[in-house]
Amino acid sequence: MNVQNIQTPTLILNKALVLENIQFMAEKARKHHLSFRPHFKTHQSAEIGNWFKDAGVDKITVSSVGMAEYFAKHGWKDITIAFPLNIRELDDIENLAKSVKLNILISSLETIQYLLKYLKQKTGFFIKIDTGYHRSGVLPENPEQIQQILFSAASSKNLQFKGFLSHFGHTYKAKNKQEVLSIFESGKKQMDKLKNNFSELFPNLIISIGDTPSCTLANDFKGIDEIRPGNFVFFDLMQSNIGVCKESDVAVVMACPVVDKYPERGEVLIYGGAVHLSKEYILDKLGNKIFGKVVQLTKNGWTEIKEEIYVTNLSQEHGIIKASRSFIELLKIGDLLGILPVHSCLTANLKKEYLTINDELLEMWKGW
Amino acid sequence: MNVQNIQTPTLILNKALVLENIQFMAEKARKHHLSFRPHFKTHQSAEIGNWFKDAGVDKITVSSVGMAEYFAKHGWKDITIAFPLNIRELDDIENLAKSVKLNILISSLETIQYLLKYLKQKTGFFIKIDTGYHRSGVLPENPEQIQQILFSAASSKNLQFKGFLSHFGHTYKAKNKQEVLSIFESGKKQMDKLKNNFSELFPNLIISIGDTPSCTLANDFKGIDEIRPGNFVFFDLMQSNIGVCKESDVAVVMACPVVDKYPERGEVLIYGGAVHLSKEYILDKLGNKIFGKVVQLTKNGWTEIKEEIYVTNLSQEHGIIKASRSFIELLKIGDLLGILPVHSCLTANLKKEYLTINDELLEMWKGW
Repeated sequence: MNVQNIQTPTLILNKALVLENIQFMAEKARKHHLSFRPHFKTHQSAEIGNWFKDAGVDKITVSSVGMAEYFAKHGWKDITIAFPLNIRELDDIENLAKSVKLNILISSLETIQYLLKYLKQKTGFFIKIDTGYHRSGVLPENPEQIQQILFSAASSKNLQFKGFLSHFGHTYKAKNKQEVLSIFESGKKQMDKLKNNFSELFPNLIISIGDTPSCTLANDFKGIDEIRPGNFVFFDLMQSNIGVCKESDVAVVMACPVVDKYPERGEVLIYGGAVHLSKEYILDKLGNKIFGKVVQLTKNGWTEIKEEIYVTNLSQEHGIIKASRSFIELLKIGDLLGILPVHSCLTANLKKEYLTINDELLEMWKGW
Repeated sequence: MNVQNIQTPTLILNKALVLENIQFMAEKARKHHLSFRPHFKTHQSAEIGNWFKDAGVDKITVSSVGMAEYFAKHGWKDITIAFPLNIRELDDIENLAKSVKLNILISSLETIQYLLKYLKQKTGFFIKIDTGYHRSGVLPENPEQIQQILFSAASSKNLQFKGFLSHFGHTYKAKNKQEVLSIFESGKKQMDKLKNNFSELFPNLIISIGDTPSCTLANDFKGIDEIRPGNFVFFDLMQSNIGVCKESDVAVVMACPVVDKYPERGEVLIYGGAVHLSKEYILDKLGNKIFGKVVQLTKNGWTEIKEEIYVTNLSQEHGIIKASRSFIELLKIGDLLGILPVHSCLTANLKKEYLTINDELLEMWKGW
């Protein structure tokens, strides 16, 4: 890696680690006979998409219509938009459904009724199920609402029911592996009950679940047909903090120039702030916010974390690192430090490009 | 405003409010005989820059070299980069200094020594002073370090000392106007002392201060020569929360489509998440996080906040709004809600464009 060329905060990607992460999840899906439909909202990159293709992946998940269009343009033919349908984008969705096997996400009768009136293109749909995250979806203990949606949809020649989709997103707030697995088991049980209730009417219905913590840690996927994890492609400190991955599995770091040093207060100032890393944080044992952890860049990537050096504060373009006096005294202004991101999805989204450790620039979708 | 055309989260700008905010600060600077060098990192837009030109502004502040290049390209000839010099960008800085009256920011002897060796272009510089924010800068009670910097710089034919610059950024964390003014008074006193100590050697030295809360609320600028506020151009909930502005002064809102409703749990789901608004938050009286407040869009802009309706949770592209059942029952899926942003700088930076209420699209710098 030619670090001499790095002038401003730059998101460095270790392709070998990304390929390992992809391989791990693809292998897990194969072993458990699961359909693997990775979420591409973490990396948002056509080139990284190709690495998934190389691993045998032929269908994907995205979280917006624009992102679906981007990946369709780059050759993907089977796409689920795993965000509750935004009816204001119906024209674009219909256009997309002409050339792509498209699934949309429905969680209300009102949306289905709108589609009955206006949808002019054949489209698959999943019903979003809320198994406890309470962000979106129908509660599984509400079979009446599900029946109403299915009953209405049955009168449409364009709507094709695919199955039930859930995102156990509360695993992101779990404190440890045990909590992740307990959320997963509870969600699986609820989805399984739905499958049993509706499989007579819909024998091919798909049970699709999504989160990286569950998909990484769980080992009994009985009743589940499809997994849609996304974050695992890079992982991040949120995941290592729960115990989902090791810090050495994190596949991206933000290279940030040192612009000042304050040994007397144990702090280093870097060029790298909220516009590069996002304001997402984890908490240390004392309840202090951590916005990133620090590694040293090397010719072939970056070192492990050698001591507990944290990004403790971020403003728009400034980052403050707390470190020992001995660490600071070895630094020179103009040195680069690597910051392991707290939430790689938001960090990648801010930078809109990657520099691989082999000095290749990977482009991303420029949307939102 | 033609809201029918809005499909996805869109940052709406009320030009009349922006012009009022610009007029207010320009007038304040005139009244107090202050040089007005507004910070452009909030809006990052050439067109909005022109509105400042119309108000008589001819010099600006930015926070990165790329942003300086963007505004130089759009006709600005007098630019201060108010971020501690990143020596890795020295070539670009020198290029810029050939065509623009450029000031850079220095807070360490190490950086000055680097410049003595490598700087080949005449450049103005300010010394960054830390009056209590403790993000960056030299402590004013450390005149030795300041003298060393000035002594070293004096041996350079390219470095021209302009004055002392501070950002009283701890006013952003103030709880009320009184706290803002007390931080301002303390900072002003420290800067004034520096001026007295160094004005014999440098009779034209400039005292430059920066934050929106101080510049908006203070009324005694004795000893200060220049102000560099930026956020006031839009304001936001952080500022209204301190008492710096009214919520009705906030000049941008994010228009977000309603994608689902959960009256039984008092929540609305919008398309609009951390990739649109940022994860910045304020706290309500009970210590709950607020990521935005809700207004209704109208033909000519948006309404005042009618009841306390908050964005209480954000994930990548989902936003959760807490509201009364009666408010929710009037909403239809596909309606638009306006979200007043917590931190307009980060929100604008994420969207990279504005739609005015007269349906004009304003472009922004695409950098970082």
